[in-house]
Amino acid sequence: MSLPIVEAAYKKEKPETEQIPFGRTFTDHMFVMDYEEGKGWHEPRIVPYEPLTLDPAAMIFHYGQTVFEGLKAYRTDDGRVLLFRPEKNFERLNLSGDRLSIPPVDEDEVLGYLKELVALEKDWVPEFEGTSLYIRPFIIATEPSLAVAPSKSYKLMIIMSPVGPYFSGGIKPVTINVEDQFTRAVKGGTGMAKTAGNYSSGYQAQAKAAKEGNADVLWLDGVEKRYIEEVGSMNIFFKIDGEIVTPALSGSILQGITRTSIIEVLKKWEIPVTERRISIEELYEAYEQGKLEEAFGTGTAAVISPVGELNWLGKKMVINDHEIGALSQELYDTITGIQRGRKEDSFGWTIEV
Amino acid sequence: MSLPIVEAAYKKEKPETEQIPFGRTFTDHMFVMDYEEGKGWHEPRIVPYEPLTLDPAAMIFHYGQTVFEGLKAYRTDDGRVLLFRPEKNFERLNLSGDRLSIPPVDEDEVLGYLKELVALEKDWVPEFEGTSLYIRPFIIATEPSLAVAPSKSYKLMIIMSPVGPYFSGGIKPVTINVEDQFTRAVKGGTGMAKTAGNYSSGYQAQAKAAKEGNADVLWLDGVEKRYIEEVGSMNIFFKIDGEIVTPALSGSILQGITRTSIIEVLKKWEIPVTERRISIEELYEAYEQGKLEEAFGTGTAAVISPVGELNWLGKKMVINDHEIGALSQELYDTITGIQRGRKEDSFGWTIEV
Ligand SMILES: Cc1ncc(COP(=O)(O)O)c(C=O)c1O
Ligand SMILES: Cc1ncc(COP(=O)(O)O)c(C=O)c1O
Repeated sequence: MSLPIVEAAYKKEKPETEQIPFGRTFTDHMFVMDYEEGKGWHEPRIVPYEPLTLDPAAMIFHYGQTVFEGLKAYRTDDGRVLLFRPEKNFERLNLSGDRLSIPPVDEDEVLGYLKELVALEKDWVPEFEGTSLYIRPFIIATEPSLAVAPSKSYKLMIIMSPVGPYFSGGIKPVTINVEDQFTRAVKGGTGMAKTAGNYSSGYQAQAKAAKEGNADVLWLDGVEKRYIEEVGSMNIFFKIDGEIVTPALSGSILQGITRTSIIEVLKKWEIPVTERRISIEELYEAYEQGKLEEAFGTGTAAVISPVGELNWLGKKMVINDHEIGALSQELYDTITGIQRGRKEDSFGWTIEV
Repeated sequence: MSLPIVEAAYKKEKPETEQIPFGRTFTDHMFVMDYEEGKGWHEPRIVPYEPLTLDPAAMIFHYGQTVFEGLKAYRTDDGRVLLFRPEKNFERLNLSGDRLSIPPVDEDEVLGYLKELVALEKDWVPEFEGTSLYIRPFIIATEPSLAVAPSKSYKLMIIMSPVGPYFSGGIKPVTINVEDQFTRAVKGGTGMAKTAGNYSSGYQAQAKAAKEGNADVLWLDGVEKRYIEEVGSMNIFFKIDGEIVTPALSGSILQGITRTSIIEVLKKWEIPVTERRISIEELYEAYEQGKLEEAFGTGTAAVISPVGELNWLGKKMVINDHEIGALSQELYDTITGIQRGRKEDSFGWTIEV
């Protein structure tokens, strides 16, 4: 049984993907499915990419009941299209949804719909090195009501956008500011969920960091303002005196799928990796002792984003002389190799569309 | 210079307001104004209440960059229409907007537009005891982009909804659960801003409280989970051994306009009122010693909502025998009296439309 499809009457021109800005161009079609109390999720369909019409009282505009995901489709050298662990994204969509009181979707079913959408838009998956088709599933509360309570209706949509390489001209280690005042998330809050409010709440800290020449923010925990959590849209790993460490899932950080994959790769390589609390003081001490060997962010956008410099209360930690570390490079090559079908996928992580 | 107005071709029937549910019926018109980078806020206008059309990539759907306000228009016995301290709402809208990196509006100008809108919809302000016209100004990020960064375009809208009495059949003290696991807000976060994400993040705690027969949630601070912050959509006051106390503005609670007004009324009456940290343990101790005399929430919705019972980790505090306290009643009568033009407005709080 296939999805009903309303084909777009007009097909857009596909952009030159070498340098297309992130998330501004969308493919010809999108996926939509509705939820209504008593009826459940229903009417899955593919329609032309087109504006949404909502009541000004729709709850998404007032109380932020919404969750989203982010994954990519990759083009292999022989022209096939691969998805990387997409089932994990729908699993996390439901996890986030649970925190936001949004009714769960059938993960397998929605993954099936996504595959149909990607198949239809196959020509939109770019070929150029480092490019991909970014996929954004999201659910929004649509009931027109100002009551502060869970919505009785929702819309799940999947939109897709071809994206250029994260690093044009090769990987460049970034400079990151350790935020000491603003808080992203706290135990008992929504930090472990991929929900809208977690992102705009970081804009002030982002602007502050950018002002001093930093590309991103490293968040500390909301309770003691000591323990390292994550970067803007990435989890973080450190190589300290030969040991790989990453903050444990505290309840206030996102369980990144790249993070999970990196841990599994390291385990396979028999490189010890520890998930635990790491304070910024401990990190600084390691740095002073010359033991902070590598640092890198992990996420769907860049896969691995090496950190060349950390700024913390006027103190500067220059890591690996602003160069990408050997381990960071190896992890990057391995994961991107699997994603683009160039390395053997011994984990069974990719799904061909 | 008056606002451009597109009159609604069709006028809706006005509901019986004695028991109309909150926030589901809207008036015939709404106010809209747009913002674009480089152009600022522009094109203020009144148009028929109608659906909004937005790109599925509009930032409001993805990163939650949005703020809102809530105030009311009241009908006096002699048929006039009053607003209660509306300038405070636009002041707070900008305060919230600053936290969310949303460009400020001209407060006086927008208040002027609101007055025009209310004047046009005057017949929608209900007369029945305890009713009012609820006014919801809100700003949403509209730029179609998945980049995690402040939007370059916004929409400010004002929609209005006639609402029935908060308490039908007289004030009834409510039962409230003290939430010990979920967190609403934390220092450095967005708790002091009226922004969407702060509300849906409370649904889980709300459901948990409702399951045990509680009407609402009392939040504790996110750091120590000890200090009392506020109720769902209300600030909280206690009368302990003759002294009135309310949590100080910690940065993680909303600066309620009712809260501010209550403090000013108490000062005028020369009743001492203290804004300070109050731990839940201190409150419980006072309760055990028979010193917890009154407790009440304050907010635009109910003005004063007496708390008859607090549940905290299986311990129950019954306050004033589930009856409204003398001070709560007096404050309620005073504020609602001013709002409806029945008491002398010696503070100059009301504005006639
Ligand atoms: C807050 C946050 N942390 C971490 C990540 C990395 O997660 P993933 O590896 O699944 O892309 C993301 C991005 O998706 C994110 O938004
Ligand atoms: C979180 C929160 N606290 C307190 C209040 C009370 O504020 P006000 O008295 O301005 O209505 C509200 C409602 O507006 C609110 O949403």
